[in-house]
Order: sequence, then structure tokens, then C-alpha cells
Amino acid sequence: MTPRAGIVVTGTEVLTGRVTDRNGPWLAERLKELGVDVAYTTIVGDRPGDMEAALRFMAGEGLNLIVTSGGLGPTADDLTAEVVGRAQGREMVLDEALEGRIAEILKPLAKRWPNLDLDAISRSNRKQAVIPRGATILEPVGTAPGLIVPAKEPQSKPTVVVLPGPPRELQPMWSEAVETEALKAAIKDATEYRQKMLRLYGIPESEIAETLRTAEREGIELSRLEITTCLKRGEVEIVTRYEPAEQGVYDAFELLVRTRHADTLFSDDGSTVDQQVAALLRGENKDQTQTIATAESCTGGLLAARLTELPGASDYFEGAAIVYSNEAKITQAGVKAETIEQHGAVSAEVAEALAEGARAKLGADVGVGVTGIAGPGGGTEEKPVGLVWLSVATADGEPLTRSVNLPGSRADVRDRTTTVAIHLLRRALLRS
Amino acid sequence: MTPRAGIVVTGTEVLTGRVTDRNGPWLAERLKELGVDVAYTTIVGDRPGDMEAALRFMAGEGLNLIVTSGGLGPTADDLTAEVVGRAQGREMVLDEALEGRIAEILKPLAKRWPNLDLDAISRSNRKQAVIPRGATILEPVGTAPGLIVPAKEPQSKPTVVVLPGPPRELQPMWSEAVETEALKAAIKDATEYRQKMLRLYGIPESEIAETLRTAEREGIELSRLEITTCLKRGEVEIVTRYEPAEQGVYDAFELLVRTRHADTLFSDDGSTVDQQVAALLRGENKDQTQTIATAESCTGGLLAARLTELPGASDYFEGAAIVYSNEAKITQAGVKAETIEQHGAVSAEVAEALAEGARAKLGADVGVGVTGIAGPGGGTEEKPVGLVWLSVATADGEPLTRSVNLPGSRADVRDRTTTVAIHLLRRALLRS
Repeated sequence: MTPRAGIVVTGTEVLTGRVTDRNGPWLAERLKELGVDVAYTTIVGDRPGDMEAALRFMAGEGLNLIVTSGGLGPTADDLTAEVVGRAQGREMVLDEALEGRIAEILKPLAKRWPNLDLDAISRSNRKQAVIPRGATILEPVGTAPGLIVPAKEPQSKPTVVVLPGPPRELQPMWSEAVETEALKAAIKDATEYRQKMLRLYGIPESEIAETLRTAEREGIELSRLEITTCLKRGEVEIVTRYEPAEQGVYDAFELLVRTRHADTLFSDDGSTVDQQVAALLRGENKDQTQTIATAESCTGGLLAARLTELPGASDYFEGAAIVYSNEAKITQAGVKAETIEQHGAVSAEVAEALAEGARAKLGADVGVGVTGIAGPGGGTEEKPVGLVWLSVATADGEPLTRSVNLPGSRADVRDRTTTVAIHLLRRALLRS
Repeated sequence: MTPRAGIVVTGTEVLTGRVTDRNGPWLAERLKELGVDVAYTTIVGDRPGDMEAALRFMAGEGLNLIVTSGGLGPTADDLTAEVVGRAQGREMVLDEALEGRIAEILKPLAKRWPNLDLDAISRSNRKQAVIPRGATILEPVGTAPGLIVPAKEPQSKPTVVVLPGPPRELQPMWSEAVETEALKAAIKDATEYRQKMLRLYGIPESEIAETLRTAEREGIELSRLEITTCLKRGEVEIVTRYEPAEQGVYDAFELLVRTRHADTLFSDDGSTVDQQVAALLRGENKDQTQTIATAESCTGGLLAARLTELPGASDYFEGAAIVYSNEAKITQAGVKAETIEQHGAVSAEVAEALAEGARAKLGADVGVGVTGIAGPGGGTEEKPVGLVWLSVATADGEPLTRSVNLPGSRADVRDRTTTVAIHLLRRALLRS
């Protein structure tokens, strides 16, 4: 039996949406890598009764493992350790050695915030050293220790792993947790899964639904695979998970997708279009690196920010001219005033001038120009909100230019535009 | 009794973290506005058994309302309507009028994707017209209808509201849902709450914990308030929710925070620092608008993107020079080669030259310069990863310049730098 796990994310600020949860998704990925199925991620507020009910529900569903995040801080509403102790039937005890180690960690803080009352901090952090008896301690990355709390009866379910809320504390602590005997024991029956991801661009999700039906008509036993399709930032992802014995079924399915969607399938190895563009810019070896620059209006720097997300982007990224005003378009990106007057700031001609201007002004091999109407204001009947013109200029040949009409809010239009731009850039780089 | 609600977000792609859930947080905010307490948000995959267990759990906890998102699409793994029907004890029936309305909606799709097989689409969408008997239909915004499914017994709990996954469909449909008798009946006992938010910058969360203890020592009955503190993008948010009768208790608490944290409290009306900076740039009236430009290295355009997030940013935002290479710093932002040679690209002097260069090159009143080491490579002992220099130049007076050492990943450093920059900008604008 594949072990099943649940994730309990605590924090009223997460439940009410003021903070976006990054831990649930991250933990789900890690558990899947270990061959553990995640059944539920539940977000609860800082109310102990609600948290206890969530733990009871997951225990009742027979889960092998529960991982919690958050609620280990120094304030009174940080109650996770206590609630987990109670749910697992274990008494809370002060671990004095742990208290001492936390005190050591707090000392350097005094330097950074010289006006703090260190005694007050110690008092508020003593709480963090009170833990369920018999728990395995995961050493603090920040100031809060993590815990692995087994069920009261030996060999029974579930084991609860208690982790702090800040991702930069939770993530290294999880790596420590997977090395412990306590966690290994809880998931000892994990089976291996394989997972493959296909990414397509420029296709509606319903086309994939039709391909799935075709697969079944052709006798491919899709029930042996766990296939998920989803639309993400304008791309369709097909993720398939399967046991190694079903490799043949998967191969037949992948071949069908390749055949039916040859023109829109752009990734079969998990690589993102961002990674592909970075690799294309770097070329086969260092000597062939092409440098890139952008000139952006409606995206306001989002495309440059996206192109510099990957470490080492300075190898190929020169810079960008973010040109909101017409004057900036002229002085910073070399667009001619007449071009704007004749065609308007949102036009094929200005997009091409921006792409060429980015190349020339920033001395780059490749230039991308983007101009559009992000909204909510500024649209007209002829040029509505969501209209964006994009162009890619390279050293040789014609620019690659296109327009799109994007739906959604200002944020949607701006974000989606970066996806369109980066796919256009990929096409231009593959061509050259 | 305050009605309590649960949110069930479906989708393996959300559970496994490939897609970030935006619906849970959004629905939680809306429910809170209606005076409904959200107890749980649970994310489940596309497995009907798991979804049913989550619904059973929430019903068992006595929740008045459950809102689901996702799983209404045309593919076979979209099972929400059926599972909810079963959980509520209601038979599934084809609503032919609804089927006809969905068919109408699909027609224009054929124009956009001319190669589609329209019959295939109709088949895969018929499923969306099969609904639990007695449910209230919420008209499709995309192609999927929403549903309000009451419990089988009149007057009993819970009522389930079934909404589609895409936020741009879910959000308008929710507005429709709150106007229905079916939803009003489910939450008829909702009581009014007030909510206030205080935002602080440049203070550790533990200082707030100490303030809460002080409040209690001074006799402020904090137990009458629901206070949540959280750290968000480098700021501390204190959110307090209370019944109108407790206004006096809240006022005493707020006064204490104001007194103790006068220098770090920057917002008491829910306004973000981004909104405050936008208002400061606009001035009291249009004549006083100050224009702004940035010159950025390590943030790669993220600061410009953040400054242009708000609608109408073109009123004050001129543009930006994103200058990754030294050459771009010189040609695009007017930094002198000697300044870079003498002090290094990451230095107070270069940050100031960038700020001044942004003003001069883009003809703006205010310029912001940012240069730093985002990592993971490029750090030295003297200038480690996370070191960032920032400067704000205005028409009158000295530039405002500072450095920070930011922890975390490349993405953390880049994002956090925009927060530091925007607070520095706020200070400079308040000074002038």
C-alpha cells in the first residue's frame, strides 16, 4: 500500500488569504518524490479546536503521515506543538537543553536590533522548548525547533511532523526530517512512481480532453496512469504518474500526444520555456552566446524580471529599456516620433522599433519589443484593453512580430504577455 | 451563532503545487466580509473518494456552508458536481435548457480555434449540464455553470456552493451566488464584524509579541479581540477583528501600538506602501504630480514592474533603465566608468549614480537606483550575496541612500529588495 499523507497549514493569515501558502505545495512535491500520496492539504486558522479537528479527520482517514507547518513562533497564538501533543496523546515537557540552544541562537539578534529587551525575547521563546514527550527534535533553522511526534501506541498511525511556517526554515528542516528513523518508519512501504510532464502552448484544454478520448478509443489503458491536465500561465501541462510496470502504457500515450500535438508540444523533459530560452541564448558553448535586451511598455519590466529570474542570467542578459511614456520610447529605445504618431504607441511598427531599439541601444544580439494596453483604462474600440503587439529582432532576417488579445485583469494581461513574449522569443531563436 | 464555512479546493494540479490556489484566499475574504467565519480550507486531488471525505468531515463539524472550487470542466476527472450531489443525497439529472445555453456559449469558440471539432466539444460539455436535482443554477461565466446545492432535509446543514476553478469565472459567479435565496438562507445568522489592519516596517515580529503582553499587563482585554500578526514581504501586519461592542477595547489596543511603534507604523487604514507611494507621487492635485523613473541592476525590472502594478501608473511612471551589464549602466543610466572601477558595481556611489541617472536619462523628478548581489553566485567575503545598495534622488536635497543585507534565495533577495526600495522611496517623498 502506498503511504498516504496529509498536510496541515496553520495560520489565520494564510486561511484569510493575506499570506499565500508556499509550504503546502512544496511539501506535496517532496512527499510525492518519496513515493507518498498526498490526500489532503488543509489550512486552519490559529484556533486550537479547528486544528485538532483537522488532525482527527486525517487520522480517521487512516493517513500514515501528517505534516504541519506554522504555529511554532513565540506568540500566544502559536499553538501547534501543544495541539499535536494532545492529538497524539503525549504530555508536554520543557526540554532544558533545547531551551539553552534556542537562547544561543537568539544572542546575535541582539546585535541586529540593539533596542530589544533580550529577557523579554527569552521569555517569549521558552515556550518553543516545551515539546511532546518522546518527540524527535529537529534543530532550529530560525529560532523554532521542529518535531516528529509518533502516535502513542508503537506501530500505529499517524506520525506527525511539525515544521515552522517560514519557507526558509521549513525547507532545510524537512531535509533533516527525512533522514530520521522516526520519519522513515512512518513511510516504510512507499512505492516508486515515475512522473512525466508534457508542456504545450497555443492550444485549448478541451483539445487535450479529445486526445484522451481518442487514446481510450485506440485501446490505450489510461486507467493504469494517473493523468492530470492543467492550464498554467497560458500553457497546458499534462502530468502523468505511473508505476514502473506501466511504462509501456505511458509510452503509447505519449506517442499519441506527440503525433496529435506536434506543433504545440514544446517540452517533454520538465523543462520550462524560460529554461529553454536560456539554453538557446547560451548556445552549444560559451562562444556562441547571444545577448538579449528588451524594450517594454505595458509589462513595465516584468519580461526583464522574468528573463533574469534564473541564476547566471547576467551571462546573456544585457538590460532593458522600460518605456512607459512616449518620450521614453523615443529617447531610451530609439523609436521615431513619426512612427508613434502614424501608427499609435500600440502597433506592429512600434513593437518592431522597440525590438530593434533594444538591440541597438543596449548592444544586444536579440531584442524583444512589447507594447500594449494592460488596462483597466486606455482601451478604445479599435485597440481594446488586452491588445498587445510583440516583436523579436535578431541579427539576421526579418523581425518576428505578432499581436494578441488577452482577457482578464491588468495583472492577468501583464503576466500573460510575458508568456506570449517568451514563446515568441523561443520561436525566433529556434529559427535562427 | 456566527455561521461557519469551509472551502474545498479541488484539483491534483493545486494539491501537488503545480498551480497556486488563488480561490481559497479570495473566497475566505469574501466570506469574512459577509460575517461568516472560515474554519477550514481543504485542497483535494481529483479523487472522488478524497473529496467526499473532505465534504463529510466539514458537514460533521457542523459547518453551515461549504464552497467548492474547480472540477467542473469537460474532462472525465472533473467530478465535483457528481460528488457534491451524492454527499447532499441528491440525484443527478440532465438539465436540457442549461445544455442549450452552454451550446450557445461554445459557438464563438469555433471562431477563435477554427480547427476544432465542435461536435467533440459539445459532447465533452454535455456533462456540465448534468446537475443535482433541486440545485440552484449559477449561469456560466466561461462554459461551466455553478451550483448551490442545499442539504436534502429542509433547514439542515450544510449548503454547498459549487464554483468553477478559473478565478475569472469564480469571482463574478460568487457575486451572483450571494444574491440568491439559497445562499442567504444558509448564512442567515451572520453577525457583523469590524476589521482593522495596522502595518509596520522595520521591526521584528517578536517586538509585537512583547506589545501584546504589555497590553494585557495594562488591563486591555485582548481576549475580546481576534488579533493576528504576520510577517509579509518584510512588513508586519496586525489584523484585528472584533464585534462592534468591543470598539473601546480595540481603540485602547491601537493607541498602545501607535505609542510604542510610532516610528515603524506606516499604515492604519489598510493602505499598502505601494498605494501610499502612488498617492505621494500624485500629490494633492494633478499640478503637483512628481514623475518617477528607476535604474535597476539586481532586481532586473521587478521594481519598475511593482511601480506599474497599479492602474493609472502612467500618470507618474516615466520608465526605467534595467542595467545588468556595466556597459548598460554607463550608456543607459549615465554611470561613470570610473565610479564602477573605483567602488565596484555594488556600492553606495553606483546606487547614487543610478538614481541620478534615472532622473536625468528619463527626465523624471524622482529617481531610484538599485544595485546588489541577488545570488546564488557572485558574492565575495566583502560583498556577500544579499548585499544591496539603494538610493533615491529627488529634485531638491541630498540623495537618500542605504544598504541592506538580505537573507534567502535569489527570488527572496530580489523580491525583498523591492520592498526596501519602496519604503526608502516613501521616506524620501515624505521628506520632500
